[in-house]
Amino acid sequence: MHQERIAQVLANLEKEGCHQAIISDPMSIFYLTGYYTEPYERFFALFVSTDETVLFANRLFPDATPFCPDVVIHDDTEDPLPALTEHIDHTAILGLDKSFPARWVLPLIDGKAAPSFILASKAVDDARSIKSPEEQQLMREASRVNDEAMGWLKAQIKAGVTERSIAERLLGEYRSLGAEDHSFTPIVSFGANAADPHHEPDDTVLNPGDMVLFDVGCKKDAYCSDMTRTFFTAEPTDEQRLVYETVRKANQAAEAKIRPGVTFAELDLTARKVISDAGFGEYFTHRLGHQIGLNDHEPGDVSATHDEPVQVGQCFSIEPGIYIPGKIGVRIEDLVIVTEDGCEVLNSYPRDIEIVDL
Amino acid sequence: MHQERIAQVLANLEKEGCHQAIISDPMSIFYLTGYYTEPYERFFALFVSTDETVLFANRLFPDATPFCPDVVIHDDTEDPLPALTEHIDHTAILGLDKSFPARWVLPLIDGKAAPSFILASKAVDDARSIKSPEEQQLMREASRVNDEAMGWLKAQIKAGVTERSIAERLLGEYRSLGAEDHSFTPIVSFGANAADPHHEPDDTVLNPGDMVLFDVGCKKDAYCSDMTRTFFTAEPTDEQRLVYETVRKANQAAEAKIRPGVTFAELDLTARKVISDAGFGEYFTHRLGHQIGLNDHEPGDVSATHDEPVQVGQCFSIEPGIYIPGKIGVRIEDLVIVTEDGCEVLNSYPRDIEIVDL
Repeated sequence: MHQERIAQVLANLEKEGCHQAIISDPMSIFYLTGYYTEPYERFFALFVSTDETVLFANRLFPDATPFCPDVVIHDDTEDPLPALTEHIDHTAILGLDKSFPARWVLPLIDGKAAPSFILASKAVDDARSIKSPEEQQLMREASRVNDEAMGWLKAQIKAGVTERSIAERLLGEYRSLGAEDHSFTPIVSFGANAADPHHEPDDTVLNPGDMVLFDVGCKKDAYCSDMTRTFFTAEPTDEQRLVYETVRKANQAAEAKIRPGVTFAELDLTARKVISDAGFGEYFTHRLGHQIGLNDHEPGDVSATHDEPVQVGQCFSIEPGIYIPGKIGVRIEDLVIVTEDGCEVLNSYPRDIEIVDL
Repeated sequence: MHQERIAQVLANLEKEGCHQAIISDPMSIFYLTGYYTEPYERFFALFVSTDETVLFANRLFPDATPFCPDVVIHDDTEDPLPALTEHIDHTAILGLDKSFPARWVLPLIDGKAAPSFILASKAVDDARSIKSPEEQQLMREASRVNDEAMGWLKAQIKAGVTERSIAERLLGEYRSLGAEDHSFTPIVSFGANAADPHHEPDDTVLNPGDMVLFDVGCKKDAYCSDMTRTFFTAEPTDEQRLVYETVRKANQAAEAKIRPGVTFAELDLTARKVISDAGFGEYFTHRLGHQIGLNDHEPGDVSATHDEPVQVGQCFSIEPGIYIPGKIGVRIEDLVIVTEDGCEVLNSYPRDIEIVDL
């Protein structure tokens, strides 16, 4: 158990007049206890209050008692809710994790487990958002591996190769570099496929002249990396060069702007202005970035609608892109950690135009 | 859109006095519309009522209009709930998918979108539970591939091989047999590792004499297979033989019992009695099986607490096991489809003791 993290969550909850909550996101439970399991459809919840911390787990899960002294076990034939409701203060607001499913929410409400219910996830998300020095070191390490993997990916750019064949071999490379898994399904896009920001690797064959976009990340010691680079396989046309350099400038401008107090929205607008000023505004179709840590996507995105200030210790992606359907897609993405006077960019893989000879 | 499936769901809902529901499980939306996407944390819901069927999707998702004529698009900067609530009859019960998260449930309740809310998933689950002839054919085909893959797995049993190395090569074999993916993370367990029914493949090396358990399944044309076999690498000891034959008899007895009208609980008890009578009752630590189809695990399990009768067209696993901690684990699992006068066993891979020479 990480007592100081639980205390931070309770302090965040207290601001909303709430002193008890049910946390059900497995990664948040890992963050607060050090215990991770994937429950699938089974009930799994951490009850936190100013009085106690109790984990509710299925008999089939790995033993949690080394991580959390107070574990209540149920099996597949039992309704897990009665044991949980015994711990709830029925006279006080109850916080619920945003991922807690209707399957359990409706019975708690119908059973009047509390006079009112609020979403408690922000209390946990805000705690997770500020990475401790130990977590920052793990984020650096995951991105260092990702930088190395990008070099390996560049070396796979050969005429006749398919997107899928590169994507499927990446896990082996990550493992050999000491990572345990992908942090998300890798994106490998050739040519016009890159104009779909969420293209999934398929049997598309690389042809001379195609641009190649890699958006990849690994998990190392539970923490995620996430980076995008876009390569050329021939001298870029004027339009390709303009698109690429515009994205690169947008990435640079946003990263240069980061310091405590600037809002997430201002960062998004900074990158968006560079792209709009170059005439490509309509082709930058997504938010500038997302926070990251134990999950590849963590709450509090880098977008025009998020007007909170960034804080020291937050880690997020800066990933502007230009996508002209059927034609071209370029994205350049780094991870950054906010520091006292700016930011630390976790990726050192170059951002200049690179032309790979096929 | 599959109008007859939507009509079945509405008919099931009507029995609970409900004529409108929000379906959020991506696989249920696929079942009802033919459109599949993985929304991750983004809002994705199908609203069904006696008046209309409307899909709510994010702009970043693949185009859904070929599958569902009425699609309402939102983007990352918009709250998707106001557009949804416009379609809800605020004077009538609203059904919610069991997976619909608190993030959306609480605002709908606080906003009084309906006078009362019920879980609507059973209406969808009951429809999905009865496989149409076309779906049964897809289930047969997925299990045929799984039978072939089991032969390949047996051929990988060699001294010095690791669990992980076999598990990681299985996807390639599935693909070459025409399947698109695993239906779940494969279980490959050597020796005492098999005594943990949910052991994950690791770097354990196969030693002569170890038993080998494979619990694997593929997805083919979206439908799942799931089968377990346990192999020997030396002449079994008397205890190993007794454990194995007891599990085999439990599997056989349960399969022989299947016919319309028998309850799921009776099937579980039939297998459990065979195992208890042989003195191993305490070592059969899980339910006998689970329903399966588009998902590997579908609701309505084969367990002592599920006393509904089985129906023609239902498909589920029969997977008794005996797990003696630190020592031995045996499980034998088939998929079956209930027929008018019994069941069709989808797996034809043999269940007799097989000894692999290392």
